[in-house]
Amino acid sequence: MTYETLQYEVDQGVLTLTLNRPDRMNAFNDVMRRELIEAFDAADQDDAVRAIIVTGAGKAFCAGADLEKGGDTFNRDKREDKELASSERDGGGTVTLRIYECRKPVIGAINGAAVGIGLTMQLPMDIRLASTRARFGFVFARRGITMEACSSWFLPRLVGMQQAAEWVYSGRVFGAEEALAGGLVRSLHEPDALLPAARELAREFADNTSAVATALNRQLMWRMLAADHPMEAHKIDSRAIAYMGRSADAREGVSSFLEKRPASFTMGPSGDMPDFFPWWDERPFK
Amino acid sequence: MTYETLQYEVDQGVLTLTLNRPDRMNAFNDVMRRELIEAFDAADQDDAVRAIIVTGAGKAFCAGADLEKGGDTFNRDKREDKELASSERDGGGTVTLRIYECRKPVIGAINGAAVGIGLTMQLPMDIRLASTRARFGFVFARRGITMEACSSWFLPRLVGMQQAAEWVYSGRVFGAEEALAGGLVRSLHEPDALLPAARELAREFADNTSAVATALNRQLMWRMLAADHPMEAHKIDSRAIAYMGRSADAREGVSSFLEKRPASFTMGPSGDMPDFFPWWDERPFK
Amino acid sequence: MTYETLQYEVDQGVLTLTLNRPDRMNAFNDVMRRELIEAFDAADQDDAVRAIIVTGAGKAFCAGADLEKGGDTFNRDKREDKELASSERDGGGTVTLRIYECRKPVIGAINGAAVGIGLTMQLPMDIRLASTRARFGFVFARRGITMEACSSWFLPRLVGMQQAAEWVYSGRVFGAEEALAGGLVRSLHEPDALLPAARELAREFADNTSAVATALNRQLMWRMLAADHPMEAHKIDSRAIAYMGRSADAREGVSSFLEKRPASFTMGPSGDMPDFFPWWDERPFK
Repeated sequence: MTYETLQYEVDQGVLTLTLNRPDRMNAFNDVMRRELIEAFDAADQDDAVRAIIVTGAGKAFCAGADLEKGGDTFNRDKREDKELASSERDGGGTVTLRIYECRKPVIGAINGAAVGIGLTMQLPMDIRLASTRARFGFVFARRGITMEACSSWFLPRLVGMQQAAEWVYSGRVFGAEEALAGGLVRSLHEPDALLPAARELAREFADNTSAVATALNRQLMWRMLAADHPMEAHKIDSRAIAYMGRSADAREGVSSFLEKRPASFTMGPSGDMPDFFPWWDERPFK
Repeated sequence: MTYETLQYEVDQGVLTLTLNRPDRMNAFNDVMRRELIEAFDAADQDDAVRAIIVTGAGKAFCAGADLEKGGDTFNRDKREDKELASSERDGGGTVTLRIYECRKPVIGAINGAAVGIGLTMQLPMDIRLASTRARFGFVFARRGITMEACSSWFLPRLVGMQQAAEWVYSGRVFGAEEALAGGLVRSLHEPDALLPAARELAREFADNTSAVATALNRQLMWRMLAADHPMEAHKIDSRAIAYMGRSADAREGVSSFLEKRPASFTMGPSGDMPDFFPWWDERPFK
Repeated sequence: MTYETLQYEVDQGVLTLTLNRPDRMNAFNDVMRRELIEAFDAADQDDAVRAIIVTGAGKAFCAGADLEKGGDTFNRDKREDKELASSERDGGGTVTLRIYECRKPVIGAINGAAVGIGLTMQLPMDIRLASTRARFGFVFARRGITMEACSSWFLPRLVGMQQAAEWVYSGRVFGAEEALAGGLVRSLHEPDALLPAARELAREFADNTSAVATALNRQLMWRMLAADHPMEAHKIDSRAIAYMGRSADAREGVSSFLEKRPASFTMGPSGDMPDFFPWWDERPFK
């Protein structure tokens, strides 16, 4: 696959997706928006991808929306995005909703500056590791705009209202230590050690588990995080464990454990998801 | 504005609202209930107010419901509150629901004892700073009553069920360090440094951001914290960023950033909220 | 009461429920499933029980599902559980939903290994204390099955999506320090000090509070944690505080406080719950 704004590299089950406009600090534009969605579509269809790392080329992770149009950057009447030109849909939200739907674990490896959509695109990722040089900012209110990309849904669930409020109301750019203390990122790493740490975590996810079980677990957690009663989980996890319990992966998983040997799982999300998946109706925009 | 139980002082964009019955440890009564709602109404209508600090006069923040009626304090048959006399509505909840609806950032500066409604009224505030001398207690079950003021909704979201359960089941009065460790308050300060720290944070919110963007962001986060799907955020934040993106505040925000100068935002919540605000129907009591 | 897989001991208001198959590391089986539900039923009906501690006999807390059937362990076609044989319901979920409904504070005293259902059964408990020797694992995906027992609903609410994702995607077995750092458990204790610490906490809950207030507070918090608007709390807590405010427990609670003496509450959940309790309709499985 070839992308204009991304690198897409699969190695031993791990896709590394690199935002690749280093001369523009990987600023987000219409092409990157579309290509990110395409890349997640491709990753979900490819059973060779067991986990996804998202990082940035060069010094920045993503400096936010490309401001080359100046004060009209966020003016929809000037929007050039062909797919969204006649729509009032926020472009960032189309990306974060796609990541939310993903069937593979998604790890952010935040190598440098990450502001605006460069930060809110991280929130539907499952886990964020950061370089000690990373910087973060929910800078929207300082630019005279509102928070976007569904960040009002993701952020207070991730860090709590108290921390979310301080970052969003101030619009402050803050460092990696503050991001760690506030629960935004999982761990800090020296710049050279960031990608190795992300890969080690991705390998742990990829090497030891059933890919179908992980795909189901990811959607179970993201969906049930907002379900109004644990019975809603019981309805689905009962079906899921009934399906998996009869499967080749369960036989292998339990047998390998009892035999004290590594498991060798054979099922893949592209063809072996249960017929009740997805168990939800697509939520329409309007 | 003159209040019997409150001080209401606006200085450089920051309203300081002081619970002012120091001889009664600022105990909550019918007048304070009504005046708190009136004060938040006034603050929302006044574009000169960009952030709100709530604190207490004297040594206490608020010692909870005034117990001057003894064992009948919580008996509705003895209720004198003219507005609520014939209602089964909990008085504390009318205050916390009003704070929840507020369009401005709300900072609690917890200067001393805060128990019962003196504590639960803090939960819909966005951020809590505390004096090292502050003390806290969800003392309801020790008084033979239940938690109120919608605290069952706010508290587990703020500190998690595990911590909420311990504080509510024990009814224990606990100190500032425990409140900080448990995630109830954001930071601790020496008594003399508490209000300066709260004002510094309020100033950061007031000085650098679009007031309309902040008003929208506050409601986006509080509402989406309980929405059942990120698409619900996408529906609204798409409209919000479309509205703000075409606005004078966005032009100024982006232009000032590119020109490396402070922004000078001109829009105000009293007149410049988008026509889709509020986007929700008022939730009826019954 | 006599159980095959449990010990049920009430001492001074505190029920200690001990998983009691130490020769099988207290592995979960059909009998334990049924007996756990019966034990919580009994505890809810017994006003002498003011708090519940769940722990394990011997070195383990609960090593998960008994794997004596090997690769067919999770195959429903081989299920022998008489109540569930013709059902697709997950057995673990019937237990966690019962604990969720409980009227008494529930404390896990995690004395040793706790994996699979031995870990997910802890999540609807209110508070978890752990031995420094405890070990934990959401090992499902390593066994080729999905997370169960409504853990997709409970876990991300308890520890956040970022931490939940890492534990579930890796299937890793982790130690007590990692559990504490991740927010899964409240505190660590030397093995000999674990049960004394759990009992001290249970005593604090039992000795100082109204049992009816605590029963209402427990359900208020668990239910409102997933309610979509604080008004939903206001509707119920208004009724709850109106009911309790007129009660003998409120008179005693306020009077004893003003008289600076211990309270002596007389109301009990078996007979004194308000007529609006439960305020919810039972959520059907299908």
